[in-house]
Amino acid sequence: MRKFLNDPKAFVPEFLEGIALASGGTLKYEPKYNLIYRADMPKKDRVSIIQGSGSGHEPAHTMIVGPGMLDAACPGDVFAGPPVEFVTETSKLMDTPAGVLFIVNNYTGDRTAWEMAKELCEAEGQKIGYLLVNDDVAVKDSTWTVGRRGVAGNFFVIKAAGAMAEKGGSLEECVRVGEKVISQVRTMGIALSSCTPPVRGTPLFEIADGEMEVGIGIHGEPGRERRKMGTATEIVDVLLNVIVPDLPFKSGDEVALMVNGLGGTPISELYLLYGIAHKKLAAQGIKVFRSYVGEYCTSLEMAGAHISLLKVDAELKSLLLAPAEVAVRVF
Amino acid sequence: MRKFLNDPKAFVPEFLEGIALASGGTLKYEPKYNLIYRADMPKKDRVSIIQGSGSGHEPAHTMIVGPGMLDAACPGDVFAGPPVEFVTETSKLMDTPAGVLFIVNNYTGDRTAWEMAKELCEAEGQKIGYLLVNDDVAVKDSTWTVGRRGVAGNFFVIKAAGAMAEKGGSLEECVRVGEKVISQVRTMGIALSSCTPPVRGTPLFEIADGEMEVGIGIHGEPGRERRKMGTATEIVDVLLNVIVPDLPFKSGDEVALMVNGLGGTPISELYLLYGIAHKKLAAQGIKVFRSYVGEYCTSLEMAGAHISLLKVDAELKSLLLAPAEVAVRVF
Repeated sequence: MRKFLNDPKAFVPEFLEGIALASGGTLKYEPKYNLIYRADMPKKDRVSIIQGSGSGHEPAHTMIVGPGMLDAACPGDVFAGPPVEFVTETSKLMDTPAGVLFIVNNYTGDRTAWEMAKELCEAEGQKIGYLLVNDDVAVKDSTWTVGRRGVAGNFFVIKAAGAMAEKGGSLEECVRVGEKVISQVRTMGIALSSCTPPVRGTPLFEIADGEMEVGIGIHGEPGRERRKMGTATEIVDVLLNVIVPDLPFKSGDEVALMVNGLGGTPISELYLLYGIAHKKLAAQGIKVFRSYVGEYCTSLEMAGAHISLLKVDAELKSLLLAPAEVAVRVF
Repeated sequence: MRKFLNDPKAFVPEFLEGIALASGGTLKYEPKYNLIYRADMPKKDRVSIIQGSGSGHEPAHTMIVGPGMLDAACPGDVFAGPPVEFVTETSKLMDTPAGVLFIVNNYTGDRTAWEMAKELCEAEGQKIGYLLVNDDVAVKDSTWTVGRRGVAGNFFVIKAAGAMAEKGGSLEECVRVGEKVISQVRTMGIALSSCTPPVRGTPLFEIADGEMEVGIGIHGEPGRERRKMGTATEIVDVLLNVIVPDLPFKSGDEVALMVNGLGGTPISELYLLYGIAHKKLAAQGIKVFRSYVGEYCTSLEMAGAHISLLKVDAELKSLLLAPAEVAVRVF
């Protein structure tokens, strides 16, 4: 393993502690529940927004806790959903009369934990909202999913709902804008390499140099097909030819265009893909409102990328542009 | 090669075009000189700041062009300094009576181009300032360097000088704060894997799984020694035990602490290293003023990391916190 690690079993708690220490006091870490949360939350009149999925997808979602995004995140171990107790304790900690919004990616393990927690929290009198993210158009069902998987589009759901919460929107309004994003965002990815979970110590699957997995899942789940490596232009075609007709995105539409790196692909290659996708969309009359190029939802050190398209209207544009601040930042 | 590429020779121009397209019009791309520049620069009363080194270190430096940072960047091909003509044309394009500041990393190829360009530009009547970044404490001389190499600390030099320029500082003031950063920043890195330049198509050097190169250069130049892989805690010790005594950083000092990823290391591991480094510094009475965790200066898809420490005073704190906006961003 070519990894910076102490005890592989301590990988998640150790990087979570690093997030809190790096925050200068704005984020806190509660080891008992793998919990990263805003030190200034909850607030009485403000909806709280929480998420917790497997680790190994950083910056999602422990590094996108902050004003305008998540208020708390309670990850499980690498590629494993959080235990129900993590979720109920997180919800309790962030509880407010305005309500707590659960944003859940569509994996069976995550849904089991979050849906059970929702029942338990509601039974205790909490007001809970629920959003299920399923933006991956690659496959209908998958190794750990019934229905479509939630992947990089999750960022936009959190951004929109987070901005709505920050400006004082009700739980119903946060759910409404989150559902709007979910209905209008589509994603698909390609992997060029596997990845190695620290405790496992060996690659999750095998993929030969010169091959690619079209429609890869973020835990190494198979996609649509294993294929001979294509050029960057061919790859963008493969992805857009599934993503664009799915909504469909049409001439005259404005979109947010994301090229998300899976962890091991340099940002130079992501910008190369971005340029190709931008021009192909322009040729179809689809206008990019704003670009998102970098790592948003990864799979440890996997080489690969997602393309995500979100159709935007005036409301979503304003929510995307609203200020937000999280652990991952340049300055 | 596990890379998103069309023609490997077109790698640099294609990702540069992507940067410009992603910018929504704020950045322009001039293919003739591999040039990315701010569409709103130069300005008559404002110093311009430019840089151009090898490609393959993204986001440095083509993706950190924008208000408060670089005004233009003219990279060479992967791991190759820019031709003199790229530099002179960039300087001419950004020329202003307030002066043009060249920020150069200490590699023989870069220095040759930039020092020759400085003479040529001054002969044409331009007012030129010059800063040489050499923050890498690993080795005294190296494969392509006489003296210490310039690595991740370059970010802080640009940030401070860029903030000074943005608030209307003179060329002399920009040089002064840049020199202050250079005198107070120290960096060292460790590589866990090699990397593959697109045109070459094979790894730049060999390193076995389970080994690490202590003091690696960002073009694969040898460091201090090849050693058996250590734990994350041992690795942080190895780096801080060279960096801290070099300045020296002392109890009572405040610092900016950067953990820079070399391209193939997930941000989770960088935060894990960050947490360890933060605590070790605290134990020595050295207080972190602000954290920087992510990719600032990479070596394509190399697995590895740098730790950088910058001693800050009131002026540097204010310059680090000044607003800036570049291509690499989350929102």
